[in-house]
Amino acid sequence: MSLGLFFDPKSIAVVGASREKGKVGYEILKNMVDAEFAGDIFPVNPKADTVEGLKCYRDLDSIGSSPDLVIIVIPSKFVPAVMNDCAKLGVKAVVIITAGFKEVGPEGLALEKEVVSIARRAGIRVIGPNCLGLIETTNRINACFGGDLPIKGATGYLSQSGALLAAILDMANSNGIGFSRLVSIGNKCDVDELDLIKSFGLDSQTKVIAGYLESITDGAAFVTQAERISQQKPILLMKSGSTGAGAQAASSHTGSLAGSDTAYECIFERAGIIRCASIKEQFDHAQAFAGQPLPEGSSVAVITNAGGPGIMAADAIEQQGLTFAKLADKTINKLKENLPTAANVNNPIDVLGDALADRYEFAIDVVMDDPNVDSILILLTPQAMTETPETAEAIAKISKLKPKKPIFACFLGAGKVANGVKILRQANIPQYDSPESAVGTIKAMSEYVRWRSRPKRIVKLFSVNRRKVENIIERHLRAGLREVGETESKEILEAYGFVTPKGSIATTAEQAANIAQQLGFPVVLKIWSPDISHKSDVGGVKIGLGSAKEVMDAFDLMMYRIPKKEPEAEILGVLVQEMCASGKEVIFGMNRDPQFGPLMMFGMGGTMVEVLKDVSFHLAPITQDEAKQMLVNTRTYRMLTGVRGEKGVDIDIIAEGLQRLSQLVTEFPQIQELDINPYVVGHEGVTPIAVDARISVEKV
Amino acid sequence: MSLGLFFDPKSIAVVGASREKGKVGYEILKNMVDAEFAGDIFPVNPKADTVEGLKCYRDLDSIGSSPDLVIIVIPSKFVPAVMNDCAKLGVKAVVIITAGFKEVGPEGLALEKEVVSIARRAGIRVIGPNCLGLIETTNRINACFGGDLPIKGATGYLSQSGALLAAILDMANSNGIGFSRLVSIGNKCDVDELDLIKSFGLDSQTKVIAGYLESITDGAAFVTQAERISQQKPILLMKSGSTGAGAQAASSHTGSLAGSDTAYECIFERAGIIRCASIKEQFDHAQAFAGQPLPEGSSVAVITNAGGPGIMAADAIEQQGLTFAKLADKTINKLKENLPTAANVNNPIDVLGDALADRYEFAIDVVMDDPNVDSILILLTPQAMTETPETAEAIAKISKLKPKKPIFACFLGAGKVANGVKILRQANIPQYDSPESAVGTIKAMSEYVRWRSRPKRIVKLFSVNRRKVENIIERHLRAGLREVGETESKEILEAYGFVTPKGSIATTAEQAANIAQQLGFPVVLKIWSPDISHKSDVGGVKIGLGSAKEVMDAFDLMMYRIPKKEPEAEILGVLVQEMCASGKEVIFGMNRDPQFGPLMMFGMGGTMVEVLKDVSFHLAPITQDEAKQMLVNTRTYRMLTGVRGEKGVDIDIIAEGLQRLSQLVTEFPQIQELDINPYVVGHEGVTPIAVDARISVEKV
Repeated sequence: MSLGLFFDPKSIAVVGASREKGKVGYEILKNMVDAEFAGDIFPVNPKADTVEGLKCYRDLDSIGSSPDLVIIVIPSKFVPAVMNDCAKLGVKAVVIITAGFKEVGPEGLALEKEVVSIARRAGIRVIGPNCLGLIETTNRINACFGGDLPIKGATGYLSQSGALLAAILDMANSNGIGFSRLVSIGNKCDVDELDLIKSFGLDSQTKVIAGYLESITDGAAFVTQAERISQQKPILLMKSGSTGAGAQAASSHTGSLAGSDTAYECIFERAGIIRCASIKEQFDHAQAFAGQPLPEGSSVAVITNAGGPGIMAADAIEQQGLTFAKLADKTINKLKENLPTAANVNNPIDVLGDALADRYEFAIDVVMDDPNVDSILILLTPQAMTETPETAEAIAKISKLKPKKPIFACFLGAGKVANGVKILRQANIPQYDSPESAVGTIKAMSEYVRWRSRPKRIVKLFSVNRRKVENIIERHLRAGLREVGETESKEILEAYGFVTPKGSIATTAEQAANIAQQLGFPVVLKIWSPDISHKSDVGGVKIGLGSAKEVMDAFDLMMYRIPKKEPEAEILGVLVQEMCASGKEVIFGMNRDPQFGPLMMFGMGGTMVEVLKDVSFHLAPITQDEAKQMLVNTRTYRMLTGVRGEKGVDIDIIAEGLQRLSQLVTEFPQIQELDINPYVVGHEGVTPIAVDARISVEKV
Repeated sequence: MSLGLFFDPKSIAVVGASREKGKVGYEILKNMVDAEFAGDIFPVNPKADTVEGLKCYRDLDSIGSSPDLVIIVIPSKFVPAVMNDCAKLGVKAVVIITAGFKEVGPEGLALEKEVVSIARRAGIRVIGPNCLGLIETTNRINACFGGDLPIKGATGYLSQSGALLAAILDMANSNGIGFSRLVSIGNKCDVDELDLIKSFGLDSQTKVIAGYLESITDGAAFVTQAERISQQKPILLMKSGSTGAGAQAASSHTGSLAGSDTAYECIFERAGIIRCASIKEQFDHAQAFAGQPLPEGSSVAVITNAGGPGIMAADAIEQQGLTFAKLADKTINKLKENLPTAANVNNPIDVLGDALADRYEFAIDVVMDDPNVDSILILLTPQAMTETPETAEAIAKISKLKPKKPIFACFLGAGKVANGVKILRQANIPQYDSPESAVGTIKAMSEYVRWRSRPKRIVKLFSVNRRKVENIIERHLRAGLREVGETESKEILEAYGFVTPKGSIATTAEQAANIAQQLGFPVVLKIWSPDISHKSDVGGVKIGLGSAKEVMDAFDLMMYRIPKKEPEAEILGVLVQEMCASGKEVIFGMNRDPQFGPLMMFGMGGTMVEVLKDVSFHLAPITQDEAKQMLVNTRTYRMLTGVRGEKGVDIDIIAEGLQRLSQLVTEFPQIQELDINPYVVGHEGVTPIAVDARISVEKV
């Protein structure tokens, strides 16, 4: 879809335009007429001569030309016929407002499929069905029954909930918040969220892309494209509901640790999408991204006419992890020279309760020039002498004169600051109802800046034995086996450069002792059964066995006790394994999300995983930076780098392991889940060992 | 202060009333006249005959009677003279609006002290100075220059920031939010936050107490009184800034782990105070506490006319840890019978986009009767057919008919829902601008209910050897010693029922070996020096020494190496100690907050404290429940109860230790800081051992 297919049409037909108040066909036509669209509007309705003063056509054909855009509001069963008319006329863009399709059941679904099939054959793109329509402020198009045309602005909005879009329109219209275009995507039978994000990305009217989503149609494409577009324009999304991927895959550690929202968290982070928790937060962020430059760093200066809100802002800056700017001496001196002695010339700068607009203006101007300040937050409480509109004008003036540093305003109150707020909005100065929410937006902008300046993503490729893995997986799939046994799981890992412990299977106590003797003491014994996944839960793991006698005792005890606990399990013997060099235990994992692909997991092993669920996730494939970031993102990262003078483990080697794993799960989409637990890591130069591994595969 | 002293006055004098617009003396008088106060207003100003149509008096004396309340707005230097007049006339309550006291420096402070001394002598209570005044909506008193008189409501508000109060007034007046009384407390030279909270507690007009504080005058009294009042009325506070207590005490582990805000977190939890992060949150909560009954439990049902916001509410309920109500079969059947087939009759109940008020009313009525539902959240988006005001009326009607279950409304939008919102406000139905903030309030109410139903606080008293501790502390204080050495710290603990490991000091390697032989191997060696606090940092701790030879080697190595690292330290020898039975290491601690007294700390020991800072705090003295709660509040609590079938440690014994410690630090205010680290705890029946202890004392 090019941007032009739906947007900037010169002529619009409304099939189902009605004279009857309260009907959608009436509302839409009236909204279009009221919006004063400059192009042609063609109402289509065989039962009317005119609608809202416009000549009405009996069908599309009788218009005599092909409209750029057709809006359909007739009952669903008649829609296919109109689609056929559109195909005949060569119409390329259709918005189906009508409900009664997929969302009402099988019959509706069949109807929707018919519409899509006509559209595909004729090369028609469709928005909807079951949507509210679309709005363009630039061209004064309000082909929507959600409310009045909002004022012009730089935010493009798409919504998967029509009702929410109506509420947003209402809030925007009441508060003078502008949009470039708004689209209700309804059932997404053809045009989906990504089509629109791409269009908004190309649209010169749109500086900020915002939206509300409940699902994503094509996960992989979404990630790639959104990442590219985010680099140019910020994407602010609300996302509700969950993927259900977590529930589906609970057999691996990784699967059970991935929450239903983990995949979305990962793709949003990867694609630089700013996730908003509420409409208010989205509005708060959008006005700043649309109206202000990005801050160069995270340091914030606060200018206030009252101490209390200044402290609240300072608290919020600290809590959100931003920097409370330390003003340059030059700034402090200038402020000291010109402000009253009682004023506080350090951040937060208190220009005092009797400050008029000129005092604010002076302080803002001085702080603007301070190289230690990246963002300025201006707080105003309406006091007896406060010049609210004049102060707003002063802020607007300086913002225009010195447009390189972002300014944020928080005029506290309501009626008494309303005039000032209006001026701020007109000047594109973002205005907040609390210091905390202003700081929240500064934080979001700083994070976006950090994301934009991330290093180029280079995924390293290791030389591996791909053929070997192919063979093992093929064999399992042919045999209809989902679980790959421990030995072959380790063979897969070895093929990708992992080292696993040496060892063999014993079926008698004596044999176990012999193997142990060859490996060298101490050794580990593990019960060997395709039916037992969590060996230690049934007493099937014994570590640190130091002599032949200990090995034989342990063997016999397992053989005696485990069949009592697991009478159904087929026991093939006991694995006798070398004991790993002591080191820290971590866990590697992967869980394939049905929409977004492989989610890699890193976590601190042992009880840390059990109790703290101290894990981090990232979408594969990962770069070296991202692999290291996965480590840093765990709360117990410091345990890896060494606590209290203790020597740390080799971070680079762990990161390399994650990258090798990333390559494996990227090259083999058959791998559904994978756990390496524990992965024992040591000091620099010590080779880590994948002690235990579980892989499950599926045909793709 | 009785409630009557400042509130419900019959006559008010304004000293400094002015005819000059823009002057505070004019604004206050005008506000009082505009508010239509029914009692007498006496303007006092020697330079005017009348002000705002009222007869003006040259001084207080010439009024001829003693006014119930005197408002002072004349320049600060003239205030003492007026205070003397008040004393002569027997005036009992004064509000000093004037600034220019303590906040401007030493001269102002002297003036403030003079005012206080006159007030104390004459038994006059003073609000201010440097404040905005006070407001009572019931009596139509607006003795304040912050804005118009707000409408009547059930929230009493006190603010330490005048400017913030002005902003709050403005927001309240613009949104039709009511208050009972509002007081600006200014410099708090006499009447402080606690006086007002107590007054609001007694006030039949006030159902909810709210306020903004930057400091608390009397910590101990505040905790006790606020806890008592919270039991009757919810207290909603915003608190900014920090105590600075954290910075002062960094020599102990406990001190360094206590953040500057920890003490406030503890006292707010203890006193049941609901802490609000912003004015908006405070307004959000206050309207619900004032207008709705408390929910009986945490389960929430959602009724909506649009899917999107319903999902958003469900997400928020899950994230906040509330329960998403599972509707009773009876409810579902009734809904199914009467709602359209397309409606969703499970929670969130979707009454569909074309729902009129009657459909909402039916659904709310049915859900009200469901015993599985504790709170009902009603979402409305303004769609084409939505009857917003009628739906608001339906909600109000059912809320009145069935007043035992709280109802929360979230009408999304602005202009299109304004009429509905107005009706909701008049009916005391709390209205929110997003599902998330509504759920936030339900959470706050549930937490408050949980707090109110907490078990009665019974602090157990153990029989201890108090005299012994007295002696040790006395001795240290007389000698001017702040730090109590390890041996005597342990003697203190033993006197309070703790068990410490056996051991003695050795000054030669041979002596060390002899002591070890007597204790039995293995043993621990610890360097013994008053100058070395963190022994392990300098290699001054060796554990698990299993033979005389190992003990001698370790002794000699310490004697050789440590003086090189710490050349200034006086080394008295090496402590040879029995090795503790293996168990889990935890840490106990106490840090005395200068305002609120002893803050107890519990944490997981070893690297958990270092890396995770996994600790919890509680104000002493603590009950058994609170001691157990301290354990539960750590993130790694499950490590104590046992992971993967591993046997847990004795929770009750740990809780007893915390209670004993609580008794010690409560009975000895001289103890400033205390660490027991590690406290080694074992399975049930195993006596825990306080392996290492540090105590510091100060004269009080």
